[in-house]
Amino acid sequence: MLRVVIIGSGNVAQHLAKAFVRSGRATLVQVYARHPEKLAHLLPEEKITTSLDTVAEADMYIIAVSDDAIADVSSQLPFEGRLVVHTSGSVSLEQLDGKNRRGVFYPLQTFSKNKDVDFKKVPLCLESEHEKDYAVLAELAKSLSDTVHKIGSEQRKALHVAAVFVSNFSNHMYALGSSICEENDIPFSILNQLIMETADKVNTLSPAQAQTGPAIRHDGKTIEKHLDFLKDGNRKEIYKVLTQSIQNTNG
Amino acid sequence: MLRVVIIGSGNVAQHLAKAFVRSGRATLVQVYARHPEKLAHLLPEEKITTSLDTVAEADMYIIAVSDDAIADVSSQLPFEGRLVVHTSGSVSLEQLDGKNRRGVFYPLQTFSKNKDVDFKKVPLCLESEHEKDYAVLAELAKSLSDTVHKIGSEQRKALHVAAVFVSNFSNHMYALGSSICEENDIPFSILNQLIMETADKVNTLSPAQAQTGPAIRHDGKTIEKHLDFLKDGNRKEIYKVLTQSIQNTNG
Repeated sequence: MLRVVIIGSGNVAQHLAKAFVRSGRATLVQVYARHPEKLAHLLPEEKITTSLDTVAEADMYIIAVSDDAIADVSSQLPFEGRLVVHTSGSVSLEQLDGKNRRGVFYPLQTFSKNKDVDFKKVPLCLESEHEKDYAVLAELAKSLSDTVHKIGSEQRKALHVAAVFVSNFSNHMYALGSSICEENDIPFSILNQLIMETADKVNTLSPAQAQTGPAIRHDGKTIEKHLDFLKDGNRKEIYKVLTQSIQNTNG
Repeated sequence: MLRVVIIGSGNVAQHLAKAFVRSGRATLVQVYARHPEKLAHLLPEEKITTSLDTVAEADMYIIAVSDDAIADVSSQLPFEGRLVVHTSGSVSLEQLDGKNRRGVFYPLQTFSKNKDVDFKKVPLCLESEHEKDYAVLAELAKSLSDTVHKIGSEQRKALHVAAVFVSNFSNHMYALGSSICEENDIPFSILNQLIMETADKVNTLSPAQAQTGPAIRHDGKTIEKHLDFLKDGNRKEIYKVLTQSIQNTNG
């Protein structure tokens, strides 16, 4: 079985570590963590190291740290010529120190504490500096997920921006809806089905086909009522900008 | 069994008609449609009328037409004292002609052609002018859906605005993500799991807890990269406004 070391103890590192332990099709030999207490619930103590100097030998090292720390951590690794990947959507492969064989292992998912993820369903986007390393990357990826894609640095950059729109910004739409509910004594849970159906629709329709609501209907009266209702400057501004954008894109 | 007449032939009218036929716990006696051909796939010809003058007798009349037409249609009804409801999120009960007993039967869902909806899961938001009519409204609502809420006109107005944010605007985020994918030869379907997981998260976490991404991390470098990538003025503007809003709301 292929042996993996994970470097990091944040959200992505924890979800990855859990996925490797569960899959059983690769060996998680060690996790390097500056904050080992974050991993205590996942791994036995002997699998956690707090020193990069004593990091174990493995077929692949996965650097799952904040984007800004990737270059630093990769140059601190006390070995050369091994396969080292990072997990970031927005950092190029070249940011990794060239003394090792470089790659990217980008899970296209949103990871939160306290919310389990079915890793089998997480698309893994892979890139390797050397063609021959791709097979190892792909084998490891397939041990975790049913969906594996070869995505170069340029495409990954675009994909990451698209992911911010469909996930981070959608979640912010939920946040704004939630605060409107709260201010009007409406339980936010009343919107759960609508949220799920809106997401589910684009599994079968294009977002353009799926668009509904006052903006796409050019229903000026309802839009006016909504803008009157939104006294708060920020939400009103967002409502206007997005209504305009829907009408420009779809209308 | 309670008898229902639906007035209208658009998306909501069609989904409602289908739901009544399927549920079998209320009788859909007739649908009034200016465009009867839109209903031909759903109902036998004798159940469709193109004249309001010959509309059948029923326990409740559901006006499912565009917001602007509700007042007009309700005043054209050739009877008085019966229970007449509309299905709009943003129109007050008072817009219905006062010659009949008025109510609201608002399905909190996004309806598209070519996408079936499990009506059992659609929250129905009810309001009635007369307390005694609420029981009829609720009985009919429960024959279609597992979730029925009593929501007054003021709350419904707020709920409709919240629904625009969580559904129409989220879908537009999918549309923007989709066009970024298209321009970079990435299949949009690669984002389906991320979209579903983002929606699913807020079933168990608050949107504030669920927020991830460069904005909430105050990851200025990634934000700069994304803004550079987004050459198009409109998408760049939206990225900026929403990043700012996430940082103001959550940060």
